[in-house]
Parts: sequence; structure tokens; C-alpha cells
Amino acid sequence: MKNEVNGLKGIGTFPAFPVVLVTVRNNIITVAALDFFSFEPPMMGVGICPDRFSYELIKEDQDFGINIPTKDMIESVEFCGLNSGRDVDKFNATGLTPMEPTIIKSKLITECPVNLECKVVKELYLSSEFSATHDWFIGRVVTAHVDGSYEKTQALVYWAKKYRTVSDVFSTTKI
Amino acid sequence: MKNEVNGLKGIGTFPAFPVVLVTVRNNIITVAALDFFSFEPPMMGVGICPDRFSYELIKEDQDFGINIPTKDMIESVEFCGLNSGRDVDKFNATGLTPMEPTIIKSKLITECPVNLECKVVKELYLSSEFSATHDWFIGRVVTAHVDGSYEKTQALVYWAKKYRTVSDVFSTTKI
Repeated sequence: MKNEVNGLKGIGTFPAFPVVLVTVRNNIITVAALDFFSFEPPMMGVGICPDRFSYELIKEDQDFGINIPTKDMIESVEFCGLNSGRDVDKFNATGLTPMEPTIIKSKLITECPVNLECKVVKELYLSSEFSATHDWFIGRVVTAHVDGSYEKTQALVYWAKKYRTVSDVFSTTKI
Repeated sequence: MKNEVNGLKGIGTFPAFPVVLVTVRNNIITVAALDFFSFEPPMMGVGICPDRFSYELIKEDQDFGINIPTKDMIESVEFCGLNSGRDVDKFNATGLTPMEPTIIKSKLITECPVNLECKVVKELYLSSEFSATHDWFIGRVVTAHVDGSYEKTQALVYWAKKYRTVSDVFSTTKI
């Protein structure tokens, strides 16, 4: 039995999106507003609310790192989502170790098994166009660093205030 | 130990994104290139390759449905991802039941516990701008239909050819 609800309640029904730590300059922000935009060239985008500290940084620096955390990093993920880089140095506060990028200027995070270096190629100012909550920064993934022992079931996914993980694979597509 | 790899291999490391059945007019397409763009107003976007049958339909009709399938619908999800609406009526072929929308023109899918009705408000032609694999259609979610008994752990997530589900909640954010 279905009920008709407003669109926002509909969005809340999604199971989960990958939650990542986005690094901009020396700051860290927890982001589930993340998506792939193109396989080739590889492009990823992040949605950031205009009032966030990282928002001005990404507009100025035009690059960002996407760092995939593991389940055992949940406390740092929570911390970076609840605190502002205006008030605290999040690398210091969490004990996470800055990692030097190869191409971009933003630091990466050593403890994350995957780090993607992204250069902004397109900005979507949905806040001014539609009074939307998020603006989007779409980046080209210029290089990546991957720990070969990383298993996807160690990663965190998140939606509607709830952290989960993903199950083992139960089906593989034929294509 | 991390290795530096090309950006595309980095993207493959994401655990999984929600996989949905997108309806456009009378066609169904399986999509994991899906994201939320704004909470308020609620906006969702889908990425579609220019050679797909649904691509022309969505450009013409300017609306689409997002239908969240459950794990037991895996065969229909696979079918709609592997076949083209140019060759086959996917509602007939899968036995899925068309559901009348309230506002948009595109049909919805009765068997899916969640249906979002979306009207296109912005198009991103990344294929012409960046030779990207996907173009994006961002829609305002104008209404939604939700089965109150739906559990998120019944939903499918997908990435890099692998279908998974999400775990039970293991942590809840404090905000």
C-alpha cells in the first residue's frame, strides 16, 4: 500500500550513498553528496552547502581530494561532518595523517585506502538558480592512489543519518 | 601499500551506488548513475549515455520516474540494463506493471516500493563539453509514492558490475 508524500520524503528512502572524506586545501569535510559524472574522462562531483568553510576554499583553489574511509574510521568521519574547519584543524583533531598529492594542491588522507585527485572543470550554482541547498563542483579525476588490499565491504555508506556497509556481492551483471 | 593508478580505476573502487529503474515515457532503463542534487527543493539527477533509447525520450518529454527496485526484482533489473527499448517493450518482457503517475507523463512501476516523479529543470551536456560518457538530466522531485512497509535493506546497490545490498544500520549521526 503506497502513500503519496512530498518529494523530499521520497529522497529519504534511498538505501545509502558512499560517504567520503573530501579534502580541500588543508581541511576535511564529510560528504555523502557525491557522484560519478563520467567514466571517460573520469569525472566525479561533490555537493557542498554554501555556508560551509570548504565552499570558499574549493571555489578559490579549484581542486579537491576524494578519500574513501573505512568502517573503523567512523569516529573521524563523524567528527569531520559535525565540526567546521573555521574552528578546528581537523587533521590535528582526528589524528589523521596528511598525504602529499601528486598533481592537485589539496592534501590527501594517508589512512584512507583510496585517494582520488580531482581538478574542478565545472561548477553548478544550483543555490542561486533554484534556491537549492547544495552547489556542485564537478572534477576531472587526474590521478588516484589505491591500496590493493582494500575490500569494498570495509567502506562506509550513508543516508538519512544512518551509516551502513555494503554486503558481499550476490549477483554480477552479464555485460 | 598504495599504487598510483589512472582516475578511472580509482572510480571503480567505490563500494556501490543505489541502482534504480528509471522510467521515461513507456520505457524502463536501469541506472546507477543517479544522485541527489538538493534536499530543498528536492532534486535528483540521472546520467544517461547519448546512444541510449531513453536519451531522446527524456530530452523530448522533460520528465522521468525514479523507481526503487527490491532484491527479488534482480532479474528485471538485469533485463532492463541489458536490453534496449528500441527492440523490446520492457514492461511486457519483464511482466512489470505500469503505474499511472500523478503529475508527470512517464509511467511508474507498480512493483517498486518507491516511485519519485521528476520534472527536468537542468540538463548537463557533458558529452559535448568534455567528450564525457554521460549527459545528466537534473529533475525536481514533484511528488513521490512510498510503500510504508519498505525496508532499505531490501534495496539493491550496484557498482563495477556487482550487485549488493546494504547492511543494517551500525551507527547513527548525532546531528
